[in-house]
Amino acid sequence: MTDPTQEIARAVDATREEVAALHAELPRNGLVVWTSGNVSARVPGTDMFVIKPSGVRYEDLTADTMVLCDRSGSVVPGSAGSDKHPSSDTAAHAYVLREMPEVGGVVHTHSPYATAWAARRQPIPCVITAMADEFGGEIPVGPFATIGDDSIGRGIVETLAGHRSRAVLMANHGVFTIGPSAADAVKAAVMCEDVARTVHLAFQLGTPVEIPQDSVDALFDRYQHIYGQDSQGGRP
Amino acid sequence: MTDPTQEIARAVDATREEVAALHAELPRNGLVVWTSGNVSARVPGTDMFVIKPSGVRYEDLTADTMVLCDRSGSVVPGSAGSDKHPSSDTAAHAYVLREMPEVGGVVHTHSPYATAWAARRQPIPCVITAMADEFGGEIPVGPFATIGDDSIGRGIVETLAGHRSRAVLMANHGVFTIGPSAADAVKAAVMCEDVARTVHLAFQLGTPVEIPQDSVDALFDRYQHIYGQDSQGGRP
Amino acid sequence: MTDPTQEIARAVDATREEVAALHAELPRNGLVVWTSGNVSARVPGTDMFVIKPSGVRYEDLTADTMVLCDRSGSVVPGSAGSDKHPSSDTAAHAYVLREMPEVGGVVHTHSPYATAWAARRQPIPCVITAMADEFGGEIPVGPFATIGDDSIGRGIVETLAGHRSRAVLMANHGVFTIGPSAADAVKAAVMCEDVARTVHLAFQLGTPVEIPQDSVDALFDRYQHIYGQDSQGGRP
Amino acid sequence: MTDPTQEIARAVDATREEVAALHAELPRNGLVVWTSGNVSARVPGTDMFVIKPSGVRYEDLTADTMVLCDRSGSVVPGSAGSDKHPSSDTAAHAYVLREMPEVGGVVHTHSPYATAWAARRQPIPCVITAMADEFGGEIPVGPFATIGDDSIGRGIVETLAGHRSRAVLMANHGVFTIGPSAADAVKAAVMCEDVARTVHLAFQLGTPVEIPQDSVDALFDRYQHIYGQDSQGGRP
Repeated sequence: MTDPTQEIARAVDATREEVAALHAELPRNGLVVWTSGNVSARVPGTDMFVIKPSGVRYEDLTADTMVLCDRSGSVVPGSAGSDKHPSSDTAAHAYVLREMPEVGGVVHTHSPYATAWAARRQPIPCVITAMADEFGGEIPVGPFATIGDDSIGRGIVETLAGHRSRAVLMANHGVFTIGPSAADAVKAAVMCEDVARTVHLAFQLGTPVEIPQDSVDALFDRYQHIYGQDSQGGRP
Repeated sequence: MTDPTQEIARAVDATREEVAALHAELPRNGLVVWTSGNVSARVPGTDMFVIKPSGVRYEDLTADTMVLCDRSGSVVPGSAGSDKHPSSDTAAHAYVLREMPEVGGVVHTHSPYATAWAARRQPIPCVITAMADEFGGEIPVGPFATIGDDSIGRGIVETLAGHRSRAVLMANHGVFTIGPSAADAVKAAVMCEDVARTVHLAFQLGTPVEIPQDSVDALFDRYQHIYGQDSQGGRP
Repeated sequence: MTDPTQEIARAVDATREEVAALHAELPRNGLVVWTSGNVSARVPGTDMFVIKPSGVRYEDLTADTMVLCDRSGSVVPGSAGSDKHPSSDTAAHAYVLREMPEVGGVVHTHSPYATAWAARRQPIPCVITAMADEFGGEIPVGPFATIGDDSIGRGIVETLAGHRSRAVLMANHGVFTIGPSAADAVKAAVMCEDVARTVHLAFQLGTPVEIPQDSVDALFDRYQHIYGQDSQGGRP
Repeated sequence: MTDPTQEIARAVDATREEVAALHAELPRNGLVVWTSGNVSARVPGTDMFVIKPSGVRYEDLTADTMVLCDRSGSVVPGSAGSDKHPSSDTAAHAYVLREMPEVGGVVHTHSPYATAWAARRQPIPCVITAMADEFGGEIPVGPFATIGDDSIGRGIVETLAGHRSRAVLMANHGVFTIGPSAADAVKAAVMCEDVARTVHLAFQLGTPVEIPQDSVDALFDRYQHIYGQDSQGGRP
């Protein structure tokens, strides 16, 4: 007989390790400075999630300092890291994980090129095939919403629900990405900044040619089904 | 009974270690090249401060090579590092630390995006929420002042006294930041370059939307009181 | 007597090592993010080639995970790495290696500055001598072609056959480079992004002066015959 | 009695070590890609100089692979590294070292921002104090000259002789810097790219304010006499 309490404890520990390791990808890929940015991951088989503590430097993050939260975003009392405040963006992560059961992880950054598009409240148009592959078209802009209630989370969900894109540019703020797993959401954050930069550069010296919609559709469909290895990450 | 001389010696040593370690953040965050840039920190419980030696490469900086100065900016005779000339910006640091007793550390850089705004003598407008959080509005421009007397220090103090921003763009020169601690001033220098870059990118392809003043106020107020961990750095 | 099977096995192993090592140059030179980009190399004395597996992170690439393909781009059954899917760009590499027998290696990236030119479908004009040296004039644009058949490979070959440039900007897509060896193709990919960036910067503040055609010709001719060491890489 | 032959041998060895170590600064500071760029240093007490071999990767450079040349730029037969071709820019280095006896080292790069100014054949205007400090005013443009005879060297010398700037932008080509020592010339190459970038950024969003000539003069004069440590590098 398996002990469900031990199973959950193991799942929590594994999720802590995963989230701590994924945070290292944010500075490595130039998406964050100092303590900005955060990753959350749903603990499989539960409605809890693990997230970065607030205001802690990336080099000081370990599995044990990650904060375990319940579905409302409250810290689980007595858990490792429960002496820390969770990320000040926790409410937004909790809202998304609660409202989108298919999402396993959420990433938030102020990566510079994507945030520049967000400051102009302009979606990133789909002018490169890598963007059609990853996002299936333009990357949309969400509403202007300030921290402190559910408005950021609601803005993310309203923009991304039913949208091909797994990234949203929240107006004047930054990027939120989602994925079936936290690793997939991190990949989406990396690719979002990459295409935000390339498309920015393309517009600096003229007007790039848009990709025909049927080609965008074909590229997106193919990438969802063929790219990568069968057993790897969020892509079949 | 405690020996006040030994206490001061310990405080000086701890400040040397802190300032040497903080200097490593400047090249790591892309704020400086070669020997440019410098950090100073007040020695707690004294009116002395520790600063970088002039023209020394970042990889050669150690706690012992940091220079100890009195409140006027003169090297303390016989102290470790007193065979070195202190940074050529020492007079400006001394002026700020003397006139602003609430300031525990000062940072100076020529970080490229911020210095580009300084060369145009344009304040950085507040169009991203991270800037409202950190700086409470625009980052202001200080006067054109050349090295050699108190005019740089005076320009910093006149611009920042009573201002929410802990960063000033000195005209045609570069950035000075202040903070309750040197670590906080370093964070401000990192965030200043980050927002200078993002806002630069935002203006390159159009005009970003400004954030309403009441939202700026709410974000700034919240960040001063909620962000981070209670026991960490300059933020409650 | 030499055993031809063993000789081929040794050649395959050496090519695997070479291709795995060359992949490390792509992130090191800022040409790729996450799993994008790929290098292929012909196995000397055969019509097989070695290429990156699909969707695998750069830090996880080893000689053994490289995929061995036949001239049509099909995985060689039973070979090391044959449990992996090869790069989704394999058909394009296979086409080029099949149609251009003088080519020993092919590189594909979405490097940001070059891809920005590709998104505007503008060739990079030859306004710096390094570009005359390496590419003998402008870097041309190939057709818009989507993945899934021979159209990308055909576009590369039709653009580069008889052209001095070893790099082509595939419309709305990215860069393909060729060379007598895979190392030479990697060098071309690095130099292509370098000149794409410098020429981009040059056009941002005005119009650069074009180099007279006879100077371009003289520089290209000289670089092919004089630069480098006799025994090194693809250059005499 | 000292043996002059041994003294020269020691000076050659020390110069080889210095030049090999200084080359590492070029990629570390983002001034070069692949094998481009080179540093030369005069061997003290002789009219020989040491320079990078042609087309060799930076990570493969050692003191022994540096090439020793006589004043005409010919390889010294039988010396270490004499089996290598020296840099294809050797004639330009030789010309400068021959014609400017006060110069101890020369650096050449295609660093991107500076080369963008060179492609437009525009001097970099002096709009930041760091530029007044280092270069004493604008960084000038030299003539368009192709490799193969003395015309590059002559263009460098004609532009820099009597000029405050230790850097010249050779038209459509790149940067050459000089200094009393090779280390000083490397510093000038690093600072040249830094100011080329900052001034580029400044012009992207408007017109920077120029610094009054008397302030430029005062800054330059002060920096030559006060900055740095007495015993360090080329600066008193």
